[in-house]
Amino acid sequence: MTVPRDIADALRDAIEAKDDARLDALLDPLPPSEALRLMLNLGPEVREEAFRVMTSDLVAELVEEAPSELAADFIGAMDVERAAEVLDELASYVQADVIGEMNTAAADAVLAKMDAENAADVRRLAEYDEETAGGLMSAETFSFPEAATVRTVIQRMADDEDRFDRYRAQNPYVLDDAGRLVGVVSLRALLSSRRATPLAEVMIPPISVSAQETLDGLEDLFDEHRCLALPVCDADGRLAGVVTRAAVTEALAERAESESLRRQGVIGDELRSMPLRIRSGRRLAWLSINIVLNIIAASVIAAYEATIAAVIAIAVFLPMVSDMSGCSGNQAVGVTMRELSLGLVRPVDAFRVWLKEISVGLVNGLALGLLIGLVAWIWKGNPWLGLVIGTAMAINTMIAVSIGGVVPLLLKRLGQDPAAASGPLLTTITDMAGFFLVLSLATLMMPLLA
Amino acid sequence: MTVPRDIADALRDAIEAKDDARLDALLDPLPPSEALRLMLNLGPEVREEAFRVMTSDLVAELVEEAPSELAADFIGAMDVERAAEVLDELASYVQADVIGEMNTAAADAVLAKMDAENAADVRRLAEYDEETAGGLMSAETFSFPEAATVRTVIQRMADDEDRFDRYRAQNPYVLDDAGRLVGVVSLRALLSSRRATPLAEVMIPPISVSAQETLDGLEDLFDEHRCLALPVCDADGRLAGVVTRAAVTEALAERAESESLRRQGVIGDELRSMPLRIRSGRRLAWLSINIVLNIIAASVIAAYEATIAAVIAIAVFLPMVSDMSGCSGNQAVGVTMRELSLGLVRPVDAFRVWLKEISVGLVNGLALGLLIGLVAWIWKGNPWLGLVIGTAMAINTMIAVSIGGVVPLLLKRLGQDPAAASGPLLTTITDMAGFFLVLSLATLMMPLLA
Repeated sequence: MTVPRDIADALRDAIEAKDDARLDALLDPLPPSEALRLMLNLGPEVREEAFRVMTSDLVAELVEEAPSELAADFIGAMDVERAAEVLDELASYVQADVIGEMNTAAADAVLAKMDAENAADVRRLAEYDEETAGGLMSAETFSFPEAATVRTVIQRMADDEDRFDRYRAQNPYVLDDAGRLVGVVSLRALLSSRRATPLAEVMIPPISVSAQETLDGLEDLFDEHRCLALPVCDADGRLAGVVTRAAVTEALAERAESESLRRQGVIGDELRSMPLRIRSGRRLAWLSINIVLNIIAASVIAAYEATIAAVIAIAVFLPMVSDMSGCSGNQAVGVTMRELSLGLVRPVDAFRVWLKEISVGLVNGLALGLLIGLVAWIWKGNPWLGLVIGTAMAINTMIAVSIGGVVPLLLKRLGQDPAAASGPLLTTITDMAGFFLVLSLATLMMPLLA
Repeated sequence: MTVPRDIADALRDAIEAKDDARLDALLDPLPPSEALRLMLNLGPEVREEAFRVMTSDLVAELVEEAPSELAADFIGAMDVERAAEVLDELASYVQADVIGEMNTAAADAVLAKMDAENAADVRRLAEYDEETAGGLMSAETFSFPEAATVRTVIQRMADDEDRFDRYRAQNPYVLDDAGRLVGVVSLRALLSSRRATPLAEVMIPPISVSAQETLDGLEDLFDEHRCLALPVCDADGRLAGVVTRAAVTEALAERAESESLRRQGVIGDELRSMPLRIRSGRRLAWLSINIVLNIIAASVIAAYEATIAAVIAIAVFLPMVSDMSGCSGNQAVGVTMRELSLGLVRPVDAFRVWLKEISVGLVNGLALGLLIGLVAWIWKGNPWLGLVIGTAMAINTMIAVSIGGVVPLLLKRLGQDPAAASGPLLTTITDMAGFFLVLSLATLMMPLLA
């Protein structure tokens, strides 16, 4: 194993010497993600120089490996000829993803320099929503006219090894004169029929999806059918492209990843290679909402200053009750989000979810309340202080898991994004409830506490 | 569209009438996840009865759709004959997953009733770690002896349509007499060679993986090669199974999902159908660690009771500073976890990550500090209070993003789980730092505040 720092230095040397063969020799044996990581660590200027020096083949590999927003940055920093050359090496759906992330002017400039057929495919694909069959499909299809024979198909497979690789998941599709999908030929039929047989004789009716089919719909379809790819048709029944099982699985994983980021307050799939303005701005937008919610929650404390002044120890426990309730609630949010993504719950199941959560809340609330109550009692030697803090903790845990379990379902029913909104809503309500419980109980029992 | 409640009632009726045809008619047209959701909502007793009534085919579909811990519950609740019958319908890697989740005694009882060949496959697969090629592979392989001809392969494809579906992603593998993998036949070779050609003449050297290959290694391999499946060999070079691209993508998605749950304090992939004891116990284990950390953090406040007693308003801002810093830090954790999973950063990049984070922390810290400082100033009419709170907020935001960005990398280097441990570590340190900053600054400037 070479130490990474050495590879980085060797890369810099090769870039400075404009030695594309050496760059290729250094990067090609690495896993693509590792090659990409090294390029990112070079910093923008050296990286741009590297992209000028490397073979367009190798650049295309790195662009394909990068998340599309990063790929768009890479392409955007190249001159348009180079950008077009690199993009031409990629599959149409990757092209469309990258072009989709660029601003319109830059995208048009690059498209104008690309192979005309590729550019037309990209423009067509870019019209579809990213999370539909149209947005996920490849424009390259393994298709034949009805009059073609088994021999035609076999010859095409034999002649065009490189393209055939891209078609691996596809069966031959049969189109009528208007380009409408009329049949699909199984591999078995191909293998067991005579070469002169017209495809029309061996094809079977196709299962196809509309270009507007959603990601969830595609997931269900691939669950139902064992096939590796499904043909995508436009409104007129014409074959528009092919969506593979792999593309759907990957899109589902990306959606889940981006949801998990939103739950942590990272909106818009940030990467550290993005400009500071974007990274800081997006995070701040989410934080600003949170700070306003925090101020609202803290106003509950402000209303009880007299109670705190009388029993200063309470100030020690306020952040603890609020933080622990937040933790309990977030656990419930996590489980609901998982069950939502597995399709195991729906908004109509809110009551059932609540019943499950409240039982957990009761057990864990009592446990946590007992623990924190004992700590308060022992620390200040006042059992009533322990009772106030412990009771507030127990009740607030039950509130937190109820809200955490149910709020994502309600947000979903309201058409809101449960991933981004559940957390802030949860913490605001549990903070307010926690502060109120501790402080109002303490006010009630003031004679015993002070 | 039928209203879900009606389907649920119809299901109950069909189960009570032990009408398997009606159950089949109700569930079969639904997406598998929806059928599973309905079964979960029936409650354990009715569901167990349903599994006795349904065709084993339909039960197998539901078991396949369920996450493996849930599938194991389903199977565990059936009598062993039924369980064996259902499992026999599934692919070997699903069998192994489900059996792997059951306790040893129950698993052995079911395996004893299963088809002997299936049971042997399962025992073999269950020996491998779940996140290795061995744990992800299917035992069913599309393999032939060297002496076989192209005709043999084509006939096997034509004869055995059902099994062939399972082999869709595989090329024919060629084995020597000892079962060692010696070659692979491309579809193109199959199509363009004469039927009498021995496979030994058309095969090419295989790319294979060891059964111990890790999930990350498999991801890299499938990134590099366009193939849909890779043969898996044991230490002696014998073909042990086949791992598909789809199985790897799915395992990666599951790993990411389970990581995202751990980040929210849900250890062990909880589902609400699990018993209360498990759900509550696992969550409580994580909460207990957190409450201890919280007590440690709160001890900082306890040390400054005199300061709070003098300026009660500070008690209002303590939870706010701690909560907002937690939010900022969690954003940084989220981005680092994403970049780790994309392979864009490694522990050696900690310093570079910190540089990126501290710039965001500076901008966002100033913005948040200014905002909260103004609120404090206006509320109490004391600019110095605003200065104390705002400064503490700004500095603590920088601390939080630094820790949030870097801690997952350090945990990774130490071989710890960054997903589960980053959050608690982060909030403890930022809470302590936040409380300390607010309270020590306030103590310093006491004459101006009180």
